[in-house]
Amino acid sequence: MSVIYDRVALIGLGLIAGSMAMAMRRAGLAGEITGYARSAETRDVARQIGLVDRVCDTAVEAVEGADLVVLCVPVGAMGAVAAEIAPGLKPGATVSDVGSVKRAVIEAVAPHLPDGVHFVPAHPLAGTEHSGPNSGFAELFDGKWCVIVPQDGADRAAVERLDALWQGIGAQTDEMDADHHDLVLAVTSHAPHLIAYTMVGVADDLGRVTDSEVIKYSAAGFRDFTRIAASDPTMWRDVFLNNRDATLEILGRFTEELFALQRAIRTGDGDHLHAYFTRTRAIRRGIIEAGQDTDAPDFGRKKGA
Amino acid sequence: MSVIYDRVALIGLGLIAGSMAMAMRRAGLAGEITGYARSAETRDVARQIGLVDRVCDTAVEAVEGADLVVLCVPVGAMGAVAAEIAPGLKPGATVSDVGSVKRAVIEAVAPHLPDGVHFVPAHPLAGTEHSGPNSGFAELFDGKWCVIVPQDGADRAAVERLDALWQGIGAQTDEMDADHHDLVLAVTSHAPHLIAYTMVGVADDLGRVTDSEVIKYSAAGFRDFTRIAASDPTMWRDVFLNNRDATLEILGRFTEELFALQRAIRTGDGDHLHAYFTRTRAIRRGIIEAGQDTDAPDFGRKKGA
Repeated sequence: MSVIYDRVALIGLGLIAGSMAMAMRRAGLAGEITGYARSAETRDVARQIGLVDRVCDTAVEAVEGADLVVLCVPVGAMGAVAAEIAPGLKPGATVSDVGSVKRAVIEAVAPHLPDGVHFVPAHPLAGTEHSGPNSGFAELFDGKWCVIVPQDGADRAAVERLDALWQGIGAQTDEMDADHHDLVLAVTSHAPHLIAYTMVGVADDLGRVTDSEVIKYSAAGFRDFTRIAASDPTMWRDVFLNNRDATLEILGRFTEELFALQRAIRTGDGDHLHAYFTRTRAIRRGIIEAGQDTDAPDFGRKKGA
Repeated sequence: MSVIYDRVALIGLGLIAGSMAMAMRRAGLAGEITGYARSAETRDVARQIGLVDRVCDTAVEAVEGADLVVLCVPVGAMGAVAAEIAPGLKPGATVSDVGSVKRAVIEAVAPHLPDGVHFVPAHPLAGTEHSGPNSGFAELFDGKWCVIVPQDGADRAAVERLDALWQGIGAQTDEMDADHHDLVLAVTSHAPHLIAYTMVGVADDLGRVTDSEVIKYSAAGFRDFTRIAASDPTMWRDVFLNNRDATLEILGRFTEELFALQRAIRTGDGDHLHAYFTRTRAIRRGIIEAGQDTDAPDFGRKKGA
């Protein structure tokens, strides 16, 4: 693999930026990687662990001379960051982002960017329940998808260069329209996260009744919800506020279905329940066949450990 | 470890029975293990792989001379199986079960058991998304909890012997009242499973709109729901029908909370969302500290693979 961008600037130094930096180094994709984070503490940690080649004290300094600038901040902060870096952007540079919502980010970022700068939004579908500058690892994106959302009239060379970067990082790439992206992600990610957060909150309320039993016996299913519900609170607040309509639509459908299943439980309609559960089991097989998970039994996590 | 029961009979030969047989052999806890399954196909597979020492063609034959009989069938089948084996039970034998619901199982099983037989219900909190005679493994219960639910006036020697068996199998044991067990499990297991089934069903409906994208991009959170929603349909139908009141109560609270969060999204109340998500993150730490899961980042499952 050879250098794709001479200089890459990462704005925000959390899980995604850190993992990108490590993966770019692994494959030698960037000449120099600069970085900036708003928090002085994050910048200090990033310097100590050598997360990027050079940690800058301002966003403008970080983007100076950069061929690619990637905004790795929560969705709600994208607009302000774009306004901040705009004066420092090199003509011909590409600006991209890693936000989990695309329409709102495009509306927040695009107006601030000067002519002659290419804006190519993207969203790598990868993450863990950890966050912060110490949480990154080079393999995070291996085999995962990165959705690229080119704008009308986008410079194809700029799009293809970013595409090559993500492939070099280890991801598979795909192009999609912003609104369609936001709907698909509402189903596969945003609604499931809100549901997991809700169930964990309910258990917490009840936990005061049942002492620590909810935690002690969490391995029976609840544990997987807590993993999802341990994700970064700021990131997720911004996702819901910025993909509001699609998320609420999916949650509306979810509630409808849940009521139908509750009714089946109340009336003792075992056939309805059995048919429903058989259908959902088939979807799991589809995911394994699509290579998006392994078939290893996981509820008993210690197997083979 | 030495032999705890000279002869153990397992009725039902799925994931739990298979794993119990392997774990009992690993520790030398049983002199002989017999087994029975209603399906001839399951019995054939069990014979081929040597799941137990002797696979019998009737349940009565399997329990003959057994010191411990463990009912490892779906909750809805417990009563009929108890009636079937009753005439063959040895005086002084212990009958136990592994059902995920305790009150309904006790009501279904106890009336069939003859005097002089000890009934000690139990529930090992362990499982995977796989089922059937090929899905067991000896390590399934290692470090997991097994809840024992002794009845009023239970023979303490019989309870303690079963307790010793589960500890020999690798589990930690605890005693609990049946109704309390059913409420705790509704929170930690039954409601989360129904919610996961529901979300996967919704995605399946939408999948016809968005083609295979829901599966392709499942790694963003949805994937963990499909793992839960791939569990055995018959087992789960019976759980919901037999722990109806507690499950419906928890689902009612869940819906209330979900509506409050939906309202926060609709009105743009970011503070409410952020505070809620911060609280749920703390619960995750509690589970890790309680040793019920590891802190390894798991969303990007391929790390270190």
